[in-house]
Amino acid sequence: MNGAESLVRSLMTSGIGLCFANPGTSEMHFVAALDRVEGFRAILTLFEGVATGAADGYARMTGRPAATLLHLGPGLANGLANLHNARRASSPLVNIVGDHASGHLRYDAPLTSDIVGLARTVSSWVHRSHSASSVGVDAARAVQAARAAPGQIATLILPADTAWGGAERAAERLPILGPAEVSADAVTRAARSLSQGARSAMLLRGPALQREGLFAAGRIAAATGCRLFCDTFAPRIDRGAGLPVVERIPYFAEQITDFLRDMAQLVLVGARPPVTFFAYPDRPSGCLPEGCQVVYLAHEHEDGTRALAALADELHAVAPATVAALNRPDAPSGPYGVPMIAQAIGRLLPEGAIISDDSATSGAPMLAATAGAAPHTHLMLTGGAIGQGLPLAVGAAVAEPGRKTVCLTGDGSAMYTLQALWSMARERLDVTTVVFANRAYKILNIELDRVGVSSRGPQALSMLDIGHPELNWCSLARGMGVEASRASTSEAFYEQFADAMARPGPRLIEAII
Amino acid sequence: MNGAESLVRSLMTSGIGLCFANPGTSEMHFVAALDRVEGFRAILTLFEGVATGAADGYARMTGRPAATLLHLGPGLANGLANLHNARRASSPLVNIVGDHASGHLRYDAPLTSDIVGLARTVSSWVHRSHSASSVGVDAARAVQAARAAPGQIATLILPADTAWGGAERAAERLPILGPAEVSADAVTRAARSLSQGARSAMLLRGPALQREGLFAAGRIAAATGCRLFCDTFAPRIDRGAGLPVVERIPYFAEQITDFLRDMAQLVLVGARPPVTFFAYPDRPSGCLPEGCQVVYLAHEHEDGTRALAALADELHAVAPATVAALNRPDAPSGPYGVPMIAQAIGRLLPEGAIISDDSATSGAPMLAATAGAAPHTHLMLTGGAIGQGLPLAVGAAVAEPGRKTVCLTGDGSAMYTLQALWSMARERLDVTTVVFANRAYKILNIELDRVGVSSRGPQALSMLDIGHPELNWCSLARGMGVEASRASTSEAFYEQFADAMARPGPRLIEAII
Repeated sequence: MNGAESLVRSLMTSGIGLCFANPGTSEMHFVAALDRVEGFRAILTLFEGVATGAADGYARMTGRPAATLLHLGPGLANGLANLHNARRASSPLVNIVGDHASGHLRYDAPLTSDIVGLARTVSSWVHRSHSASSVGVDAARAVQAARAAPGQIATLILPADTAWGGAERAAERLPILGPAEVSADAVTRAARSLSQGARSAMLLRGPALQREGLFAAGRIAAATGCRLFCDTFAPRIDRGAGLPVVERIPYFAEQITDFLRDMAQLVLVGARPPVTFFAYPDRPSGCLPEGCQVVYLAHEHEDGTRALAALADELHAVAPATVAALNRPDAPSGPYGVPMIAQAIGRLLPEGAIISDDSATSGAPMLAATAGAAPHTHLMLTGGAIGQGLPLAVGAAVAEPGRKTVCLTGDGSAMYTLQALWSMARERLDVTTVVFANRAYKILNIELDRVGVSSRGPQALSMLDIGHPELNWCSLARGMGVEASRASTSEAFYEQFADAMARPGPRLIEAII
Repeated sequence: MNGAESLVRSLMTSGIGLCFANPGTSEMHFVAALDRVEGFRAILTLFEGVATGAADGYARMTGRPAATLLHLGPGLANGLANLHNARRASSPLVNIVGDHASGHLRYDAPLTSDIVGLARTVSSWVHRSHSASSVGVDAARAVQAARAAPGQIATLILPADTAWGGAERAAERLPILGPAEVSADAVTRAARSLSQGARSAMLLRGPALQREGLFAAGRIAAATGCRLFCDTFAPRIDRGAGLPVVERIPYFAEQITDFLRDMAQLVLVGARPPVTFFAYPDRPSGCLPEGCQVVYLAHEHEDGTRALAALADELHAVAPATVAALNRPDAPSGPYGVPMIAQAIGRLLPEGAIISDDSATSGAPMLAATAGAAPHTHLMLTGGAIGQGLPLAVGAAVAEPGRKTVCLTGDGSAMYTLQALWSMARERLDVTTVVFANRAYKILNIELDRVGVSSRGPQALSMLDIGHPELNWCSLARGMGVEASRASTSEAFYEQFADAMARPGPRLIEAII
């Protein structure tokens, strides 16, 4: 057994049997070892940002890490933007990054770079293996680090000689540091805060936004009258008919301030106090009204779901949670545009669907239109690094092959990582992608005003315009083997989306808006 | 005047009037300032790796830096792979990276990341502006740093408040630290080494591989009998009919060792001793035969071209350099494949063409077939981070609008930064792209053997195969507004390439091989 085989076997033993890969020469021994470990699956991507985003999507759906396989510093660099998003989602993830053989480094060959320096910017754990004999144990430690609550990025750097050198065995699985229990004191303080009457809310994030946590939170809301909030960009939320309703904090600074204006108490469950996404001249970054009491029921690494259950008990919250009624939007009519598209999606979304949302300016109407849709899971862009939607959909669809994945993405966002379409075609993933083709970085048109820019010359405007030349998303999708169609009317969109929901497999709809 | 305008004006004063941009909200003031500074040009890209690669291409053709405009940490991260290549090319380049307003950082908003940490991995100079008043001076210092010989990457981080805050004025241009003069002693030592007779060579890199340096080197070769070498991956070399011939060091370790076997003296001009690209089990990384004397005529930051002239004088090298005869390949015949395509390109390449080469396994036949072609400039992949070819072609074509740019790229390589095609269409750049569509990471098929992997299972092989599904490059190119055609026969390729050479504007030929 060589180091590479010991590594793959140790990943498998530690619970990782899946790798999103974009390997190069220095990873060839790892690649060769794939076939020697039964059940280990590798999925090829054509760009590393697809691999890292897919691993994030897999983690959000399963709570467990997948591995990535990346080629030295530049390969890791190409994956960093979606690793940034994964870090902001607290997704567990193990990067395996090949490197030159140890003895080769001092020659400063062309591909040599500061891999550790790159890895540190997104990883909670970084290690460079020193010998083929330790590579298996290093892998087990990487998995342990990735799975430490709430979920972290672990990056293991694999010099080529540690892959090709001889190893004795695979490592044993190491214990996992799960979410910490919340103290009785924290529960009591939260109960006291919520018992002060109206104008209180709980802000949920992490696993607390899944079914069990939502129902506990819903009972608390029923008992105390508090509202339930989630961040503008929650990594994952289960929502739709039959689930307790959570209000999303809006995006723009003045909207957030307005939304939170009346709050006297805010209980945090795996979340932090809300801040604006960007800063603006003469506006505060913090958004809570003066005097609002902030209480941490659970920090991010703590078990928010159990804490909610304990809090519900403490409050004797026995009345059932109020849940969203099944309220599918009507068959859309009226002018073609984002609201109409949102209605169509809300109406047609199948039960158990997963939405990977990188839709920027088209996102808010979508959430409104899907509030009473069939129950589904919504995944959001967590770190503001656009280009997350398509890769995340790849990983979600791999994790949940029995559920329909719907990727909603702006055209500007989708261009960053369009290579994901090829992996969807290759793996025959059940993903329907809707590209909102407004042919602009539309959010920047809004922000240009908001940051206080008064004059807009032709060069400035051209920096926000991606319509010259027009992108043809049908052509791009077909170029990567994905069936595609264009919708320029309400009827066409409805028909195409209905067809996509009725048939499995990768599909793209270019919604000209 | 605000800080952003002071910055753009200071760049202009310091000699930078061009920016490859992919801005976001935090860069909106910079964008707005573009129209207030006459003559400053911004070119939009849809992915940051295109912006950084284009700035590299511009620098290789002009010797001067362009700026990039990138959006916080993830924007910089997406540009890092081609910044790595630019660093290996010693290209001068100024990155402007927007960041959150200084007061916003402590809130750790979703887009916050370690920009300085990312920038350090590729930059020789990194600075974060502290106030709107200093931003102009910081820009002047960044340009000074970038232009310090041999050329460096300078990264200036621009917090949003330093862009929107008030500034007094633009900064003056700062003096440039040009290439250092080589000592008479170094010239004498090189002369002594080359006078020892046969089995000697000069290895050239940097500006020494342009006309003036080449002719001086050619005279030295004529006088001493030494051979002239360039690295496997030289950033830029001028070559073809009428120019002195330089032999390229081959790629694979055993080929390099063989190539250099007889060397007794090696004089380095802006280059370092040859090393293998990757390490292999039981093979040395260094490639020079034992006892080979290595003499530095000029280090990278020194003036290799002047040093060659001085060395020629010292050696009384008056005989003219031997130059390549115009020897266009015959109209290609025989079976379709890379050699035939190379012949067609060698035959049809117009005088003054620029070749941006990211063609991996198709590269070597191309160099042979263009040795006697019309004089042209060849740009190579310098840092091994594939996905350089298309962006580099963008920058080269912007720098030299009167010359035809030909991008040669593998299909695997091109997928990393295919968004460059859109910028070619938008700017109507005179670039003909040839995609060598072998539907594989072919180099990895070769390397899998060479690193000592004996067995190849189906999963390993699938990691090297990008033909399932097949990429359709015509469809991809048209999706971004670039005219495209497919060549599956010798005749078709010849006709299409001839047509592309005869007409200006962006064009793609998918060569199925």
